[in-house]
Amino acid sequence: MQPDTERISLLQAALRTAGLDAFVCASPSEVLLLTGFWPVMGDSVAVFTSDGSMRLIVPGDEEEIARKMSAADIVTYTPEMLSEITSPKEQLKAPLVEVRRSLGLTHARLGVVRELGVQPASYVVETQFRGTMEELLREALPEAQIEAADDLLEQQKALKSDRELRRMRVAAQVAAAGFQAAQQVIRAGLREAEVAAQAQAAFESTEKAQRLTRSYGQFFCMSGPNSATASAAFAHTRQRVLEEGDLVMIHANTCGDGMWTDITRTYTVGAPVQRHEEMRNAILEARAAALKTIAPGIKTAEVDHAARSVMEAHGFGKAFRHATGHGVGFAAANANAHPRIHPSSKATLERTMTFNVEPAAYFDGYGGMRHCDVVAVGEHEAEVFTGF
Amino acid sequence: MQPDTERISLLQAALRTAGLDAFVCASPSEVLLLTGFWPVMGDSVAVFTSDGSMRLIVPGDEEEIARKMSAADIVTYTPEMLSEITSPKEQLKAPLVEVRRSLGLTHARLGVVRELGVQPASYVVETQFRGTMEELLREALPEAQIEAADDLLEQQKALKSDRELRRMRVAAQVAAAGFQAAQQVIRAGLREAEVAAQAQAAFESTEKAQRLTRSYGQFFCMSGPNSATASAAFAHTRQRVLEEGDLVMIHANTCGDGMWTDITRTYTVGAPVQRHEEMRNAILEARAAALKTIAPGIKTAEVDHAARSVMEAHGFGKAFRHATGHGVGFAAANANAHPRIHPSSKATLERTMTFNVEPAAYFDGYGGMRHCDVVAVGEHEAEVFTGF
Repeated sequence: MQPDTERISLLQAALRTAGLDAFVCASPSEVLLLTGFWPVMGDSVAVFTSDGSMRLIVPGDEEEIARKMSAADIVTYTPEMLSEITSPKEQLKAPLVEVRRSLGLTHARLGVVRELGVQPASYVVETQFRGTMEELLREALPEAQIEAADDLLEQQKALKSDRELRRMRVAAQVAAAGFQAAQQVIRAGLREAEVAAQAQAAFESTEKAQRLTRSYGQFFCMSGPNSATASAAFAHTRQRVLEEGDLVMIHANTCGDGMWTDITRTYTVGAPVQRHEEMRNAILEARAAALKTIAPGIKTAEVDHAARSVMEAHGFGKAFRHATGHGVGFAAANANAHPRIHPSSKATLERTMTFNVEPAAYFDGYGGMRHCDVVAVGEHEAEVFTGF
Repeated sequence: MQPDTERISLLQAALRTAGLDAFVCASPSEVLLLTGFWPVMGDSVAVFTSDGSMRLIVPGDEEEIARKMSAADIVTYTPEMLSEITSPKEQLKAPLVEVRRSLGLTHARLGVVRELGVQPASYVVETQFRGTMEELLREALPEAQIEAADDLLEQQKALKSDRELRRMRVAAQVAAAGFQAAQQVIRAGLREAEVAAQAQAAFESTEKAQRLTRSYGQFFCMSGPNSATASAAFAHTRQRVLEEGDLVMIHANTCGDGMWTDITRTYTVGAPVQRHEEMRNAILEARAAALKTIAPGIKTAEVDHAARSVMEAHGFGKAFRHATGHGVGFAAANANAHPRIHPSSKATLERTMTFNVEPAAYFDGYGGMRHCDVVAVGEHEAEVFTGF
C-alpha cells in the first residue's frame, strides 16, 4: 500500500494552520481519515504527526486488514487475553508510551476529537472511548498539551484524496446491484422486509465487492404511506405488504473500505399514476438544476436554491422538507456533515468535496418520492457516482 | 406499554446503593437499560430517578418507536431543521433544563457513563456524545454533582427483567430462519459472501420478525481456513469459494427490540471427515458439561472449567483459544460484558444473567468449529434460547 500523499499533505496543512504537532484519534472515521484504515471493533488508535508520520495501534486481530488498507507504521496490542482479565485501556498504555518516545511527542500539542459527532457503524458492535482516550493520553504523555480539533477534522473530511474518491466510486458501483434487484422484485403482496432482504442479498452477493477489502452496507424499503416517513433522519423497513399503485422507496448506505454512499431510488408497484409522474418530473428537474450549479467556488446555498426553486415551481415546495444535501463519504447519513447543501449554509464548494443531492417530496398518509445521488465536485462540474 | 417493574426495582436499588439521585445517559444501550427504548440515531437522552420516574428526550422522528418500546414520559426535540442550522447539542439544552425543574434534580447527584465501552450498532450511523453529554449537564444542571456510574450500570446489564428475557427469546427465534437457510444453501462453488447473503435474506424475510418493533442483525460466513480466524474478536465474511470437505462457520448477532443474541453453528460441505467428527464430539460434550454446571450461586470460572477440561481431555485444549463465554443481551459481542465465563473471573452466576456458551477449536490454515448458544440462568438450571 503506497502512502496517500494527497491526504498526507492536507493533514499536514491542517496541523500547521492550527499550530498542532499531531492528531491522535480513536473514533473509526478519524482513524480512517488519518491513516486510510477503517477499524472493525473501533479500539484502534491513530497518530498523525506534522512531519507526515502515521502510526496505528491496532488489536492483533485487525493487523491483516490494517496492512491492506493503510501505509501507516503498525503496532499491535491484545485487548483481551485468555491468560488473565485485562482491559483495552490497560493494554493501550505501553504502545502509547512507545509512540510518545519514537515520534518525539513528549511536549507536543495534540489535536483530539472531543465533541458530539456521528459515526458510521463499522461492525455489529463498536468501541466508544468516551473519556478514556484523554485519560490515556494524560497518563502516557503527561507533558503534552491536549486540544480539541473537532472542527479542523470535520473540515478535513469534506475534501477527498484520489484514493478516497476511488473507494467511493466502487462503493457506488457495488450498491447498483441492490437497486437492480429491488426494481425487479417489487410487486404487490411482498412485505417491505422481503423486498429489502432481496436487495440486500444481491448487494452482498455481487462479484464487484471483490475489489474491496471491506464491503458493507444496508438496504431499506419503505412503501406506500411509509415512504412519506423517509423524510426522517433514518430509514426504517417495516412489515407492510406492498399494494398496486404504491410508491416504493429503496434507500441504501453502502461502504467501500470505509468510504460511504447515501443512495435512494423510488419505484411504483405496477404502472405509475399521474401524481407519481408529476412528482418524478419535478424531482428529476430539481436534480438536474442542482447538478448544473455544482462547481468549485459556488455557494452551497445556491445549489440548494436551484433544487428548491424547481420544487416550488412545481407546487412541491412544502413537500420538500429537508435540505438538498449534506456531506457523504466519511459519513454515511449525517445531516451536519460538510458541505451542507442547506438554505442557511454559508459554505462554498471546493474541488473533491463529496455530498448527496436528494430532492424529494413527502405527503403524510400518501407517500414519498426521493432521488438521492452521491456526487463529487470536479474541476468544472459535478461528477455523479450513482448514475444508474 | 406497561412499565417494566422488575427493571425499575433493580435500577432503584442500584441508585440507593450508590447514593445517587438519578442516572442520565445517552449511549443507546444505557437508554435501553433505563427506559426500554432502543434509540435509532443515538441522540436520545434518558433520565431515571430514585423514585422510579423515567424521562426520555428523543428526536421527533423517533417518538413513535419510543412510545412502542417504553413506558417513560417522552419529550421530543428537533436535532436538525430546514429553517436554520443548529446542532443537537443546542437543541438539547432546553429539554434538559425542563427535566431538571420537573424532576427536582437541581442539586442532585447524577450517575453518568464516562469510560471506554462497547455499544451494539443501532443503525447505519450512530451519534457519539463524547464530552458533550457532561458539558450539557454542567450547563443545564450547574448545581448538580456528576459521577461516573460505569461499573454500576455494567452490573445492571448482567441481570435481565422478564420483558428483556422475552425480547432475547424472540431475537433467537428470528435468528433460526437464517441458520436453516445457510444449512440448506451451503455447497461447493458458492462464495462465502453468497452464503452469508442467503442466510441474511432468510433472517430478514422471516414472518417471526413481525413480533418485534425493531428487528436487526448480521450473518457471517467463514469457510475452510477462514473459519480458523473466527477466534478473532470479530467475524469476517470474505469472497473465498467453498470447497468439498470445508468446515463452514455461520455466525450471527441478531437483535430483538434492542436485546441481542450471539450465535454460531458450523457445518461441513458434503460429508464430514473424521477430524470434523472428533471436533464436533468434543465441542458438544464441552457444551453439555458447561450447561450442566449453570445455576445460581455457581462461579463463572467453574462453567469455563467444565467446558475447557472436556476440550483438553479430547486433545483440543490449545485449540480452544478463548473464554467459554461472556455477557450477551445488552451487548452483542463484547468479551468484557458481565458475566465473563473466563478462567480468571471471580464472578458468581445469578438468576436472569444471560451469556453465551461457545466451546470451539481453531487450527490455523485448516479451519475452525464453534457452537455458540445464548443461555439464561434459571431458578435451578440453564435455559437455552438457541436450541435449534
